[in-house]
Order: sequence, then structure tokens, then C-alpha cells
Amino acid sequence: MDSAQMTGRSVWPAELREACGVFGIYAHGEDVARLTFFGLYALQHRGQESAGIAVSDGHIIRAHKAMGLVSQVFTEDILRSLQGHLAIGHNRYSTTGSSRVCNAQPFLVETALGSLALAHNGNLTNAASLRRELLQRGVGLSSSSDTEVIVQMLAGATGDTWEARLRDFMRRAQGAYSLTVLTRQAMYAVRDPWGFRPLCVGRLNDVGWVVASESCALATIGAEYVREVRPGEIIRFDEGGMTVVAGVPPAGRQALCVFEYIYFARPDSLLNELAVHRIRRWLGAQLAQEHPVKADMVMGVPDSATAHAIGYAWAAGLPFGEGLMKNRYIGRTFIQPDERLRRLGVALKFNPLPDSLRGKRLVLVDDSIVRGNTSRPIVALLRQAGAAEVHMRIASPPIRHPCFMGVDMATREELIAHRLSVPQIGQHLGVDSLGYLSLEGLSKVVEEVSQGLCMACFSGQYPLELEHEGRGPSRPS
Amino acid sequence: MDSAQMTGRSVWPAELREACGVFGIYAHGEDVARLTFFGLYALQHRGQESAGIAVSDGHIIRAHKAMGLVSQVFTEDILRSLQGHLAIGHNRYSTTGSSRVCNAQPFLVETALGSLALAHNGNLTNAASLRRELLQRGVGLSSSSDTEVIVQMLAGATGDTWEARLRDFMRRAQGAYSLTVLTRQAMYAVRDPWGFRPLCVGRLNDVGWVVASESCALATIGAEYVREVRPGEIIRFDEGGMTVVAGVPPAGRQALCVFEYIYFARPDSLLNELAVHRIRRWLGAQLAQEHPVKADMVMGVPDSATAHAIGYAWAAGLPFGEGLMKNRYIGRTFIQPDERLRRLGVALKFNPLPDSLRGKRLVLVDDSIVRGNTSRPIVALLRQAGAAEVHMRIASPPIRHPCFMGVDMATREELIAHRLSVPQIGQHLGVDSLGYLSLEGLSKVVEEVSQGLCMACFSGQYPLELEHEGRGPSRPS
Amino acid sequence: MDSAQMTGRSVWPAELREACGVFGIYAHGEDVARLTFFGLYALQHRGQESAGIAVSDGHIIRAHKAMGLVSQVFTEDILRSLQGHLAIGHNRYSTTGSSRVCNAQPFLVETALGSLALAHNGNLTNAASLRRELLQRGVGLSSSSDTEVIVQMLAGATGDTWEARLRDFMRRAQGAYSLTVLTRQAMYAVRDPWGFRPLCVGRLNDVGWVVASESCALATIGAEYVREVRPGEIIRFDEGGMTVVAGVPPAGRQALCVFEYIYFARPDSLLNELAVHRIRRWLGAQLAQEHPVKADMVMGVPDSATAHAIGYAWAAGLPFGEGLMKNRYIGRTFIQPDERLRRLGVALKFNPLPDSLRGKRLVLVDDSIVRGNTSRPIVALLRQAGAAEVHMRIASPPIRHPCFMGVDMATREELIAHRLSVPQIGQHLGVDSLGYLSLEGLSKVVEEVSQGLCMACFSGQYPLELEHEGRGPSRPS
Amino acid sequence: MDSAQMTGRSVWPAELREACGVFGIYAHGEDVARLTFFGLYALQHRGQESAGIAVSDGHIIRAHKAMGLVSQVFTEDILRSLQGHLAIGHNRYSTTGSSRVCNAQPFLVETALGSLALAHNGNLTNAASLRRELLQRGVGLSSSSDTEVIVQMLAGATGDTWEARLRDFMRRAQGAYSLTVLTRQAMYAVRDPWGFRPLCVGRLNDVGWVVASESCALATIGAEYVREVRPGEIIRFDEGGMTVVAGVPPAGRQALCVFEYIYFARPDSLLNELAVHRIRRWLGAQLAQEHPVKADMVMGVPDSATAHAIGYAWAAGLPFGEGLMKNRYIGRTFIQPDERLRRLGVALKFNPLPDSLRGKRLVLVDDSIVRGNTSRPIVALLRQAGAAEVHMRIASPPIRHPCFMGVDMATREELIAHRLSVPQIGQHLGVDSLGYLSLEGLSKVVEEVSQGLCMACFSGQYPLELEHEGRGPSRPS
Repeated sequence: MDSAQMTGRSVWPAELREACGVFGIYAHGEDVARLTFFGLYALQHRGQESAGIAVSDGHIIRAHKAMGLVSQVFTEDILRSLQGHLAIGHNRYSTTGSSRVCNAQPFLVETALGSLALAHNGNLTNAASLRRELLQRGVGLSSSSDTEVIVQMLAGATGDTWEARLRDFMRRAQGAYSLTVLTRQAMYAVRDPWGFRPLCVGRLNDVGWVVASESCALATIGAEYVREVRPGEIIRFDEGGMTVVAGVPPAGRQALCVFEYIYFARPDSLLNELAVHRIRRWLGAQLAQEHPVKADMVMGVPDSATAHAIGYAWAAGLPFGEGLMKNRYIGRTFIQPDERLRRLGVALKFNPLPDSLRGKRLVLVDDSIVRGNTSRPIVALLRQAGAAEVHMRIASPPIRHPCFMGVDMATREELIAHRLSVPQIGQHLGVDSLGYLSLEGLSKVVEEVSQGLCMACFSGQYPLELEHEGRGPSRPS
Repeated sequence: MDSAQMTGRSVWPAELREACGVFGIYAHGEDVARLTFFGLYALQHRGQESAGIAVSDGHIIRAHKAMGLVSQVFTEDILRSLQGHLAIGHNRYSTTGSSRVCNAQPFLVETALGSLALAHNGNLTNAASLRRELLQRGVGLSSSSDTEVIVQMLAGATGDTWEARLRDFMRRAQGAYSLTVLTRQAMYAVRDPWGFRPLCVGRLNDVGWVVASESCALATIGAEYVREVRPGEIIRFDEGGMTVVAGVPPAGRQALCVFEYIYFARPDSLLNELAVHRIRRWLGAQLAQEHPVKADMVMGVPDSATAHAIGYAWAAGLPFGEGLMKNRYIGRTFIQPDERLRRLGVALKFNPLPDSLRGKRLVLVDDSIVRGNTSRPIVALLRQAGAAEVHMRIASPPIRHPCFMGVDMATREELIAHRLSVPQIGQHLGVDSLGYLSLEGLSKVVEEVSQGLCMACFSGQYPLELEHEGRGPSRPS
Repeated sequence: MDSAQMTGRSVWPAELREACGVFGIYAHGEDVARLTFFGLYALQHRGQESAGIAVSDGHIIRAHKAMGLVSQVFTEDILRSLQGHLAIGHNRYSTTGSSRVCNAQPFLVETALGSLALAHNGNLTNAASLRRELLQRGVGLSSSSDTEVIVQMLAGATGDTWEARLRDFMRRAQGAYSLTVLTRQAMYAVRDPWGFRPLCVGRLNDVGWVVASESCALATIGAEYVREVRPGEIIRFDEGGMTVVAGVPPAGRQALCVFEYIYFARPDSLLNELAVHRIRRWLGAQLAQEHPVKADMVMGVPDSATAHAIGYAWAAGLPFGEGLMKNRYIGRTFIQPDERLRRLGVALKFNPLPDSLRGKRLVLVDDSIVRGNTSRPIVALLRQAGAAEVHMRIASPPIRHPCFMGVDMATREELIAHRLSVPQIGQHLGVDSLGYLSLEGLSKVVEEVSQGLCMACFSGQYPLELEHEGRGPSRPS
Repeated sequence: MDSAQMTGRSVWPAELREACGVFGIYAHGEDVARLTFFGLYALQHRGQESAGIAVSDGHIIRAHKAMGLVSQVFTEDILRSLQGHLAIGHNRYSTTGSSRVCNAQPFLVETALGSLALAHNGNLTNAASLRRELLQRGVGLSSSSDTEVIVQMLAGATGDTWEARLRDFMRRAQGAYSLTVLTRQAMYAVRDPWGFRPLCVGRLNDVGWVVASESCALATIGAEYVREVRPGEIIRFDEGGMTVVAGVPPAGRQALCVFEYIYFARPDSLLNELAVHRIRRWLGAQLAQEHPVKADMVMGVPDSATAHAIGYAWAAGLPFGEGLMKNRYIGRTFIQPDERLRRLGVALKFNPLPDSLRGKRLVLVDDSIVRGNTSRPIVALLRQAGAAEVHMRIASPPIRHPCFMGVDMATREELIAHRLSVPQIGQHLGVDSLGYLSLEGLSKVVEEVSQGLCMACFSGQYPLELEHEGRGPSRPS
């Protein structure tokens, strides 16, 4: 079922801020649709709203996309119908209320240069003006998605080759975009000059090439990690193998979103050749140095802060343990306890382990605090379960500035660290002590990541100038 | 679930030839989504593949469309979410294999002039070149539908008003189009200069205006028939009521598809103020004059030839009767008897009434013969059931030429009357005699229809010149 | 999705009154599941709520059943999974609000004698006491269906053979039941001693045997009508072919529901070797004799009264014509006009043909009147469309008594002919004259049907004594 | 959609071995359906195949059940329709191929004593003979479920009260059953005399009582743990509060399935007042004592062996770490890599963290080994990722005997420890060393659990005599 809805105003709703997973493959003789399916399956954590695959056999591009998890969208029959040797795929991030199949990706269009399919992870900061330009050029736009903007820009770009048109697009777009692009005969990987969102290349057993948002997708299909797609780079994969095409110059300062290391990426992924899990452990270790405390056990908020907590425990010489159980099926229901049931004590997401907590002095490690809404009830749960002390440690600095590059965060006013000082936050959360990782500590850990990172949400120093009329940041998730 | 598929070639597949139902309404204070639903329900016979409604409340256009019957696509919840006072709706014709939600209508886009929704019945004969123009202009096209072509032409047309843009479109489009168009504040009805496809206006109880492909939709919602939308006309419905806007001049020769009278339209509809049921009876009566025969009973092939058969019976002074029962649920299953079961005698669609047929000399009236595939087994059924004689009478002339204006007919080679003479056809069908209505007889009956009719499939005289590279006729259904 | 709901009271809700279609087949070497599918397809008019098929391969009985039309319930995959050479099938009648998959048939149970599947059309008048007996015997009942009662009675019956157990059941059951029964190695056809509901036997091309509620299902799959299953009869179909097994003696007075002739059965079915269509024409002819009138055209209420109207027209020497179009898609939507829209004139089911009606004196034939709710607006529609006179003729006598044998009719109070005299009814309906067929006229037409008919709803003379505490009649549909 | 299938043989297929979650609540003034929903949500890990809730308002019992996760089966509308103040619920375990809505629970039947709904966790070891008895008594059985057997035994039991009938049932049933039972006015909790499966009671804020398979469901809805339901006990919850009813004497030797501690229960549950997470840590600690080894890191197979690994790490003074990432979405797809893709390296479930593993001497802790099929590829993965040594430690003794009490384990022949010695298993798995926890060590850890545990799968000493003709153990999962 499809439902299209569209405002008559020029300001589009906030739902277009997406954080998605993209994939691409070129491999003669392989079942590329199935490999794309497995790749998307490994990238499922980057987007659960919709999934899609487009495949070319050199003559025709066929696509299937729908709302739901990868495993719900594709059946054996559908995969079988997607024959070819090059493909791209996409997982879309779910933001409540804006779920529409017409926003699902890849987008597939016919153009004067032939068929084109495209999958996008990111957020254009000058989308509003690019959108206006398209409308002025007489293009009707049927979705609220940046991806349609990119596709129509490519359809109308100058240049007789896709390479030239991609370059044309890159010269005019501002913001974050990691793209996989499919034409009848080639697959392209494209990354913005800042390198905001990750994108890496892998080699598949001498038979082909793979591109993915994260290396965990390469590992899952048995491909070997080769390297990152470099900021500003266009890479073409076709009969001739992998060819680096002139793109645009990388930005003076590169800006991979530091939250990929802190939270988004799967711990088993490599980003810039550095293992995410290791970086998280190091963040935990640095945190232990900056904010040591006498305690009986170190625990993480499951599952996202487990690696940071292990790192803290190792560095502090304290035992790592578990204090909270997370319901493995959370996030799958729209049925929620109302206020009355909440007061009764209904709590779906976490249950404490009183036996591990009773009388203990705890270090509670979390990866970050956005609005503070989840941390406070967790602290209360631990205390009710008998914790003697709760020392909260955050493996990133206070978030004081909103994100404009595609992370569905909060408005400035909603950010707790914008409104309150650290001691006030600690008091609000009800902890015995609160320690955030310093910006310097974070920088030290990630300095090895030579290309530079975007830490604007901590520092307020955005890597590019924002359109005056630019959209505000997204609703908090 | 959505499935997009698209070829890499510039020739698009035949499935875009559609014969659909359109609807539009402007009525303050009424539940226009619900009334559109009932209107589409009355027009369901014109298209069963997909259905959609777009509604404006003066500020925002909201739309819902999906595959399936009107009654399957819409629920109370969905109708309730479509608030406003002006709306358009669409039923799409089902052609096997090309069922795609991205072809469902109305199309809804954002343009430089604001939001636009559009529903289309017809077929552009110069769609290929219009399409090429759009691609050259740098527009990416995401479906195989003429409707997207129209929408993008309007988005890119010159002119600061929708009226000017519609006129611009009408000057450049060739072929059949009956449109209902929705902007935030007005609903438009538009008809091509030949008037190929029907479109009429009704008045809703002093509260509003209605436009529909057929007047049966007006009757169903309690609206009164006012008049046809004239060929080349643009009518605007808004706060100021119904306003005729300068469109393009009507074609020298008007060309309403004669098959609307013979087969497509519901018998209770008026076309050009003439009741379809009456015209069908008159066709039957004229047929009786041209091809009288001694018989015991006149019967029609149910249900489409019942009116023609009644007319024949009245004119011939013979009793009308029923000889075949049609399964009311036919067309709802993909499970078909295989060849072996067919030989066993499995026949899903028709059962004979042996008791009414035994020993009888029958006049078997049908509305038309395209390829002859269904007529032959019917004749065999009647004979097996004991009919003494079967005299077949066809209430239209032999079809010898394909249609290029949107009727999903057959290729020239598949048309039985292109390949065989009338006696040969009679022999092929196994009838005792066969009589087609003459072209003169048909003309005499319909001559009262002053604006002129397209009878190209009988005469080969097409009302407009076809693009040399124009698409071939559609696959037979 | 399954939803079970059950009251804690001993009185079960009215929804169990069903009028269904049953089918059975024994045919080595044939795809019996597919043939059962086609048979149920032909019997779809007898029940649209749910459908099911059970198949035995001699060792295992497999079944599939679900809510919906036959064509929705079965796919190629499901049919392929139902391998075997004997099968039964069932279509269940839809009564609003009681749609539950646990009431869908066939019922399939394991018993001490082996597996048993059963499909039932009818209504037990002593179901309440049989149900009580089962509960007293310690059986838990999981549905509100008579069929579960029958199945559990057979499971607990005395006798070492199914024949003996069926006989045991027949001795104790009162009311209407036409059954097809499947064991691992035989298929049985069983009919109550009154023969309330139809059931006939056919021969399938020397390869097997078929049993169906109506002969139209035989014709559809190419089987030849052999004879009716006689009242009180058990017929076994197995390796040894067709064997008549001693059942119970037929009732002194047989009682096929006369409404099968008047309304339920498909016109192309034979009942007791008499074609339903012919009987309906004769009823119309008798009606013309009893209630002649000067008129210009005879029309039926589509589609159920068409045959009666043709019969009236023939006998009266008046032309048959059409005056109302019925929406072919009616009955498929839950979205209905509210009172306000009804007053606006929204009418989904019928549209008049003003052109055929204007100034005409009409004979409007209908098969019967239950509550009068549909007739009155039809008469109003015809008058608004210009009919000069409307003479209503009913091809059956006034219904003054409720049905207890499974027809989902009305309570006594709701029956218009219970409350009003014929002239009062005519006045209520707004007709110029009203004529019902006399009970004598009806008897004369059907007297050829030697086995006797139940006409209790007209005469009040029920063919069997009703349980004092028996359920009231069903809700009107 | 419902699909019933049933064999004609008296031996029922293995799929009936279930390990499920049950829930019950009695609470005036609370939304018991919603609380049951949340309780089942917390018990989701015990069964993902189907879910159901039955609710009584004192007069009528209403139920809804369907295939799928709790969150898929219930909507706000459905929950709203389930009004009342007492309820039971059930999650059913998924075993491939036997998914049938007719096996979903609760079972709801009408009996001579009134309506009865029942939810069951366990496995009757004399089900075959009980089933035979029911069939001999003339009851037809419509599913392959033990639960239907229990329900029909209760429907046919002697005794005028449900308490008496439950006692009658308990006297005759052998094996494992933890039941929640709903009548119109009371909710019962019942546990077999051995106490095979867990069942505990909680208090809900002075307003009512709750019963659940595990205490994590109590914690989730804010109820306080009170105590276990004792072996052989019947507890009634009604207007009068909680009443212990005479059940049957507890077995001489009690026998809670030790695998509840080792694997099944959620770590945050209490069993016999002992926290599962603590027991698991102790098992790990005991394992460290029995099988110490020089190593750099202790890791568990995620997620089931995390607690055991933490316990090992603490006791051994080694750092706990992570070496494998598990795809959070695993188990949701039917699309699997074929053999060829597997050789290419496609691996969906686990990805290694090479960075944490390279050059490390690992202790790899798992909770148990059944067939060894998953352990071997895990070891290979770790070695490929660079592990220097892999020392596998199993927190339970070798499984050498099948389970007959409802755990869907393997046949004796499939159990790797039945076929191979420990050193042979180590060789087969490719580890540097392998250590199983000793039976003595296990006993020592759990000896505090006073009521006795069933450890038959390790020792072969079954706590009750098995029916000679008893079913074999279930298929391995």
C-alpha cells in the first residue's frame, strides 16, 4: 500500500533527515541481488523503515523496494526476479510519521542518458535552494526526499557522461552524501568532499567489487576490506574493474561524523581502517583516566555502551559486569504503557539485575546523552534495585549544538547540555557523580584518524557554512 | 509493497495504454473524499487495478493510492485522514504484468507554482516525442505512465497560471486525454480537442460541482447531470463556482470513441445526453433489421450484450431469454484449469442453461468480436447444451484496425476480421449464420450524436495523424 | 489471524445459521484439490465468508481453510500441497460479526476410528440439546458451529464403522444437514431424512465421482449429473466406486427448501432434475396468470429476479426490459453512505435507466419480500426516473413465518407480511398494485417436484416439531 | 490464514514439544489485557511462534490469538476489545514446519461447567495414552497439542468444581505442566508435582495478583515477586484474593529443569528466589576453578553465555571482552546463503572483532553444546580473525541423554557427547583445549536450590518413569 502526502508549502517537514545504509556491487557470475540482500542485512542497524535493491543485467535495471526490514521486503521469488551482475541497495532510517514507500530507495528514473538508480546516505545542507532551483527549472517533485533532488539534478546536469554529471552535482551540493549509483553498465561510489558519512570499498574473491556504508557488510558476504572511498571521490566499477574518476577536491578539513565511532557504526566495522570496537574501548579507557572513581563494578547501558564500559573497566582495573537486561524485542511494538501504567511501574525496555547491583558502587557508562530522558529512569531503576552509588560516565563530551548533516538529533533547546551545566545534569539524573569525556580526550583518542572528524555537536564548529534559510535540525528521536 | 521496474530502452512497454475512470469534486461542507470514493465505486468497471484519491483543504493536498479495487484501497481511517473541500480520484485499468503502484494515479507533485495532483484517462499519441523532450530537458522519469509525462509538462510549462500551463500542454499534446486536475484551491476538468474519452459535469445539490468520466457516478452520489465537458475545454471549479476557461479550439472533427457506446460505458450512463442503454437497444434493433432470422429466442452474451439483445428481440418480435450463466466471481482468480482439465470439461466462466436451449433456434447477440477467442467456445457450449441453431449477431461492424487512442485492443494481426472474411469467421466460430452490424447502420443509430465519433477501428480513418515512430497498438487483453 | 470469542452462556449467538456450499470428490489420478477448488468456485454464491478443502491420499488427511473467497484462500502452492485422490470442500456463508476462522470448514479431527473431515450445509433444530449432551459427556466445544457438534457426535458415536456412526448421528439429529465427509479412504455424502438442503451426485468421465450442493458445480468441472442424494441416504465413494449404504428412512413428508428454487440456487443448477431457471420462468408465468396487468415493459430486480421476469413477460406477451443497473462490485465494501449522504441521494447498489423508464407502465418482478427494506427505495428510484406506473409482482407468497432450518432470514416481527396485509404492504412500498404468487400457484408449479418441499415460511406448517427451547430464527440479513 | 493438517496415524509428529511462556492476572480496575500484553512481551524469549490472550469480565471470556510475535499479534483495537478483570496469556515456541494457528494458545472451550481457557508450558510424558483415552471416550481431537488433551481431560473430568477437576487431571497426568487457567470468575495457577517448568506468583500494587513463567514478567509490569507456585499446587485467584487449593502431593524428588538456569530463563529472572544471572556467573566461576587456563581474554558466545563468561573472568582474574558481534536481526529471515555462498564466506549470524582477537589467547565460554554444529564454525571464525589460542569452556556437563519433558533438544544419536569423548569433541571443534563443567560442580553451584533439579540430560536419571511407548525426543532445533 502506498500513501503519498505532500504539503502545499515550500518548507518540507523534518522527516527527511535520514541516517541510512547504502551498498553496491559489481560481480560477474555472482547472484548480486542475493549478495546485496546479505549486505543490507548486515547494515540493518542503519535503517529499519524501508529497504530496496536495484539490479542491472547490462540492459535493463530492475528494482524492488518496500516498507519494512530487509528480511520482510525480500522473498526468494523477488530476489530471483532481480537478475544481473551489478546492483545497489539501501536501508532507510525510520522516523515516526513519515513512513512512505515513495521515500524508499533506491530511486530509479529514466533520463536522457539512460536509466539511473541511486541510493543515498546523508543530508544536503543546501537542499532547500537546490529544490527551489529544480522547481524553477520546471521539474515536479513527488517526494520530500533529498534523494529525488539528487536524482533530478543528475538528470538535468550538464555533461554527456555520468562522471561529468556527478561532478556537476558535487560542485553544487553542500552537505553530507555517500552515494551508490547504478547505470545500466556501471556502478559508482560517490562521497562528499567532507566525508561526513562513511563509505568503503571491498574486493570479492577476485570476482568483483563491493561498496558499503560499513565494512561489517563486506565481512558478512566474505569480501575483503580494501579502503575508504575518499572525500570528494568518484569511483566507477565496470567491465574494466575499479577506476578512480576525477571528482571534486576534498574539503580542506575532513569531517567524518564522530558519532559513527561513538554510536552509529557496528562495533565490528572498520572506519578509516580503525576498528570501531577498539576506538570505543579506548574512549572508555580515556574516560577512566579523566574521571576515575572507587567502585565495585563497571557496567554499560546495553547494548550501545558495552564496548566503552569494557574499556573503562580494563583501564580502571575494575570488574566489568551486567546490571541491566534489555528486552531483545524492544522497538517492535507501537503499544506503549500510558502514564498511569508507567506509574504502576510498567517498564518495557530494561529490567535491573538486583542481585548484581545490591550494595554495589557502580560505574555506569553510556556513549552519550542527548536529552537525558532515558538516562534518568535508568539511574532510578539501578537505585531501586539496591545500587549503593551510581557514578555515571559518558564516553563523549556534552552535546550542545544540533546536527545539520543528517543525524536525527534534537533541537538546540532540547539538548540537556545546552540548558544545564554538568553538575546540574548530574543532579537532574540523580547520580552520585557525573563525568563526561573531554573534547581533548576525545580528540586524543581519535587523532590517529588522520582525515579529520566532524565534532560540531560538541564544539559548535561546523565544517561548512550553513544556508541562512537552512532547515532547522531534526526532531529528536 | 512497491515494485518498480524500468527498461533501459527508450521504447516503453505497451502496458501504459489505459482506459480508466476519473472523478473530481468541489463542494464546501461536504465530505469530498467519501463522495469521491462513491464516485469511483460507480466507475469501478473502468479500471480495477489501482485506485487513488487526492484531496485539498485549500492549504495542503493529501493523497492515498494503492493497488486493488476502490473498496480494498480505502478504509474509514484513510478517508477520514483526507480532509478538504475539493478532490480528484482515479481508477486504473488492469493490464496483466504491468501492475505497479508507481503507475497508480492521481500523480501528486510539488512544482514552482505549488502542489499539483492529476488524474488522466486516455493515451497520448505523441507521448514518445513528448517523453524524449522531457528527458532532453533534464527531467528524470520514474514511471512508464503518460500521466507522469503530463504532470512534468505542466510543471515545466510556460505561464504563471495553471490555466496558461494547461493551455500550453494542450497545444503540444496529441491524442486522448480527459483530465481532472487538483491544485490547492481549484479543481479543473480538461478534455482533448477531439473528445476521445468521455467527461461530464454535474451539480451537487446547490453545494458544489462534480466531474466524472461517466454520468453513472453523478447519479450514484445524487448529483444532477449538467453537460459534457466540451472538446478542447478547460473548466475551473473554485470559490467562484464553475468557470469556463479558454482552452484550445475543438478539432474539426470530433471523435468520441464509439466503443464507449458499444461496450465500455455503464448502460445507465448518458454520453452526449444520450443514454447508453438506449443506444445499445437501438444498435440491437438496427441489427435485427439488417440481419433478421427465424428463431425461437434471442439471447445476449452476458452481461455486456444484454441491452443489445433486448433491442434485437423487441425489433424482431422474438422473445428475449437467457441461455448462459456467468460466474459472478470470474476474473478474481489466478488459478486456471490447465489444458488437461479444459479437455475434461472444466469451464469457469459460463455455464449453459440446457433447459432453455434444448432444441431452440437461437439468436446469439454479442457487442463485438476482437480476436474471436471467447466466441468460439461459447458457440460450442450452446450446441452441446442442445441448441438446434446458433445465429450469431454482432452489434458492431468488423474490427479491422488497431486503436492508438488508449483502448487496450489487439495488434492488427490478432484481429480476426483483419485476417478472415465474415463467412470465414462464421465458419471458424461454428455458427449457422453470422451477421455484423454495418458501418452505415452503426452511423445511422449514432448520427444523433452530433459531435462526431471515432470509428477508426472499423474504418481505418483515424481522426488525427499518428507519429511515425508512434507506439504500436497495445497487447490484446 | 485468528480470533476466538465465546460466551460463557449456554445460549449461542445467532450467527451459526448458515447456508453454505459443500463439495466432495473421489477420483484416482486426478488433481482432486484443484477440481474441488473449481467446484467451490462454482458454488461461491452459497457462501463468501470462508472456504476450505480437505484432501486424503489414503494415509493422511491434509486441510487448508481461511476467511475469504475461494480465490483468495487458495494459491497454486497451497493446492499443490494438498495431494491425494479424495477430497471435500466447503464455502461458508457470511453473517456480519461472526466471521471467525475457527468456524470455517471443513472441520478436521482425529478420532478413535481415525481422521475425519466434515463439511456441512444446514441447521440442526435440536442443536441446543445435542450440544448440552456433548458438554454433559465431558466434551469441550471450541466453536459456535453446528458442525463441531456433528463432528464430536460422530467421534463419540457407537459403532465400529463410519457408516454405523453416521446412522447413529442421523437417528438423533433433527433438522437440516447435507454433509460431505472424508475419512482416510472414503468420501461420504449424507442428507437428512427431510432433504432440506440440496445435494447431488455426478460422474466424472469414468474416473470418479463428485458430490455437490448444486449441479452447477458438476457442470463447471465437466462432470455429468447422475441423481440427487436421497433424503436419509448415506452414499460411500471409495475403491469400490459408489455404494449406497443403509441410512435412516426418509421422512414421511420430504421438505427441500422451496427457496432453493425461488432464490438460492444458481439458475443453471438442476434440483431434483428440474432446472432452476425453468422453474423460475414458470413461477413468473404463473404470476402473470394470477396477477395480469396492462403494462409497457416487464423488468426484474437484478439479478435474482431476471428469470422470473422473463417468465412473466413471455406469459403476459409483454416485452422484457431492463430498468435498473446493479453495481457489479456491490457487497465488497464496508464503507457506506451515512444518513446525511443517503438524503443527498447517494445510492450505491442500483442506478435507474431513466430512458427505459420514462412514461412507462412497469411490471416490476421480484423473487420475494422479506422485510421490505430494499423494495421501497427501488420503487421510489423508478418513480423518480419517470415510471408512469409501477406494478410489483412477487414470484412467491408472503413470508409470514421464520425459518428454523438454516436460512438466515428475519424474526417473525421483522417480516413485513407478518405485520401488514398485502394492500398495506403495497401502500408501504408505494406501488400502483402489488401481487404475490399464491401458495396454490407456487404448489402447482413445483408439484412436479415429487419429493415434497418445505414451504413453512409461507404456510407456517413446519415439517418437523421444533425443540421447545429451540433457538429463535436468525437475524435478518 | 489458517492451515490445518493432521495425520491419520496415532503417532503425532514431534512438533508438539514446546517450551513456552504463560501468564495470568486477576486485578479489578486494571486493563488486564494490556498488562498481559506487557507480561508476554517480557516472556517473548520463551516463544516467538504465536501469542494469545484470553480475558474474562466475569460473564464472557473473549480471546485473540494468532501466529507471530506478541507485538505483531495485538493492536490497540484488539486490546481494547478484550475487556475484563482477569486474563491469561501465552507465547508459543517456534518449531519449523509445524506452525499452525490451531496450535496457538490459550485454548478456549465451552464445557458443562462453563467456559474455560487454558495456557500450558510443558510436555506430558503420558500424552499418548491420555490421548488414546480421550479418543476412546469419543472425543475428536483437532490439533496435535498436549494443551487440547489437557482441556478435554478437564472438560470430561469428574467433579463439580474446577478445583476438583484440576486435581483429577493432576492425578492422571505424568510429566511437565505449568498452567494458567481462566474460568469466568477465577484464574488458576497449576504446576506439576515435579515442578519441571517454572511458575511464580507476584503481587500487583495491592490491586491484584499475577502469575508468570518467569519473574522478569512481574518486574516488567511493576509487580512484586511473592513466591514460586509449589510443585503439585493449585492456586486460585478470585474475588477472595489468592487461595491455595489442595492439589496433589509434590513428587518425592523435585525436578526443575536445570536448563532454565543454564540457558532458557532471562538473566534478570528469579527461579526459586535465586537470580539466574548470579547462578550463571557462579557456573562460570566454578568452571574457572575446574578448568583454569592461561589466557589474555575471556569472552562468551553472545548473547546466551555472557553471564557465564563474566563469572569465569571474575574468578580467573582475567579481563572480560567481546570477540564476536551477533547480528541483532538474525532469525528473522528465511533467505539463507546456499553452499556456494557459504564457501565464498557469507556468514550472517556472527562477525569477529579481529582487532580484539589478533594474537590473543582466548577463553571462549559457552553455556552448553548440543550437537556441536554452531561451535565449530565459531572457533574457525576466531582463528581466522587471528586468535592465537582458543580454549573452550562449557558451563554445563556433556549432554548425553535426550529430554522427554518438553525441551526441543536432539535425539540421542545427534548429541555430540553421546557419540564422542570430550577429547574427541575438542578435536572436532578445533580448539586448543576443551573443558566441561563437571556434574559435581554443577550440583555444588545449584545445591542451594533446595527443591531439586532435573539433570537427566547429563546423568540419564529421569525423575519419572517414561511410558514404554512414549514419544521419542524432539527434533533438534
